[in-house]
Amino acid sequence: MAESAEIDPPSDPGLAGDDPGYRAAVVDLLGVISYGEITAFERLAEDAKLAPTMQDKVALATMAATELGKVGPLHQRITELGADPFEAMAPFNRAIDEFHRHTAPSDWLEGLVKAFVGDGLADDFYREIAAFLDPTTRDLVVSSMDEDGGHAVFVVDRVRAVIAADPKVAGRLALWGRRLMGEALTQAQRVAADRDSLTALLTGGVDRPGLDLAALGRMFTRLTERHAARMSELGLDA
Amino acid sequence: MAESAEIDPPSDPGLAGDDPGYRAAVVDLLGVISYGEITAFERLAEDAKLAPTMQDKVALATMAATELGKVGPLHQRITELGADPFEAMAPFNRAIDEFHRHTAPSDWLEGLVKAFVGDGLADDFYREIAAFLDPTTRDLVVSSMDEDGGHAVFVVDRVRAVIAADPKVAGRLALWGRRLMGEALTQAQRVAADRDSLTALLTGGVDRPGLDLAALGRMFTRLTERHAARMSELGLDA
Repeated sequence: MAESAEIDPPSDPGLAGDDPGYRAAVVDLLGVISYGEITAFERLAEDAKLAPTMQDKVALATMAATELGKVGPLHQRITELGADPFEAMAPFNRAIDEFHRHTAPSDWLEGLVKAFVGDGLADDFYREIAAFLDPTTRDLVVSSMDEDGGHAVFVVDRVRAVIAADPKVAGRLALWGRRLMGEALTQAQRVAADRDSLTALLTGGVDRPGLDLAALGRMFTRLTERHAARMSELGLDA
Repeated sequence: MAESAEIDPPSDPGLAGDDPGYRAAVVDLLGVISYGEITAFERLAEDAKLAPTMQDKVALATMAATELGKVGPLHQRITELGADPFEAMAPFNRAIDEFHRHTAPSDWLEGLVKAFVGDGLADDFYREIAAFLDPTTRDLVVSSMDEDGGHAVFVVDRVRAVIAADPKVAGRLALWGRRLMGEALTQAQRVAADRDSLTALLTGGVDRPGLDLAALGRMFTRLTERHAARMSELGLDA
């Protein structure tokens, strides 16, 4: 409930109100983030069942509840922008569902790595895109990220402990991390191809600056580098 | 996070500190409530998968996240009382797991009725027991209940709509409600038999007043009456 206060201040009609293309792009962006959080909840709640201890189960369930808690403020903002939250999410159901279908963890460890790598990648991407948003939307998007990194610490501890006890697990998990990254890129490309307005957030519009191809390439490089850093934090090759 | 502020004020050493029997009973009570919330999360997250629409799925997932959010403050209080939250929950795992094992919903509607009837019964019981608690513990226990009744409205709307469209569903759901009540009583009896300190919260101690057999009987009657009222709210016979 604390988050909802953060989106109560008067919205930014200058940007979100005047340009219908920008407004549609923001609705798209909030829709894809919302649906991502809902599926993250489902995935973490499911992974909690595989937890080896009650403590681990509660830790995963808490991560799941945190993701779901972010949906309310995102939906409220979509409504304020004059759109329906469920219609806003619909265009992204397929890509995100496919991502999860192709990356169903086969055990507890794969689930932990997926939570860490997947959420990290999504947060990095939202942080990149936040630079092109009006302040109200930017604050909301930033608040949808894993603020305190508490989840990350839990995952890193667990994964490193398992690798320390059984080093050959690292090879399998490194392959798993590559598969996650590959599948994420495949689905992101599908979304980019389908949703021009969302792509235009990054590439700019008549009155808005954006990234040229070289800058997009550098952004892609940054995302890949941060993915590699995260894998290495887990004790894994990227 | 708002809840955690409510348990920060200085605890009530008069009651919780001086009487080791009372303290053990409070740890038991907070343990059983915590574990109940964790399994409620699991059950609701599982039921969310059966939701016929994305709106229903998000409603159930939100209920699940709310239940889980109550666990943190309860665990914090158990720790303040010098006990380990996971050890405090352990004695109740079996009874609560058995309850859920014997009342696995076979469809979306049974899941909704279970959420409404089960949570209502638990809240009624905690409200009865709250009268025998020190103020700090009482506030915490009361805050673990479904404050706004928002979930209840959602369930009542959905169940009544289905019965209106297909009245013969009511017979099956009425039987289901009776089974839920019967299984809850069976498991509550097991807990009462196993945990003397918890039972003594209600029946009193050397220095504390409690309920005699007649008063316990009246409490049981109140719980049954409120269960019947809830069933009737759903449009079902008790």
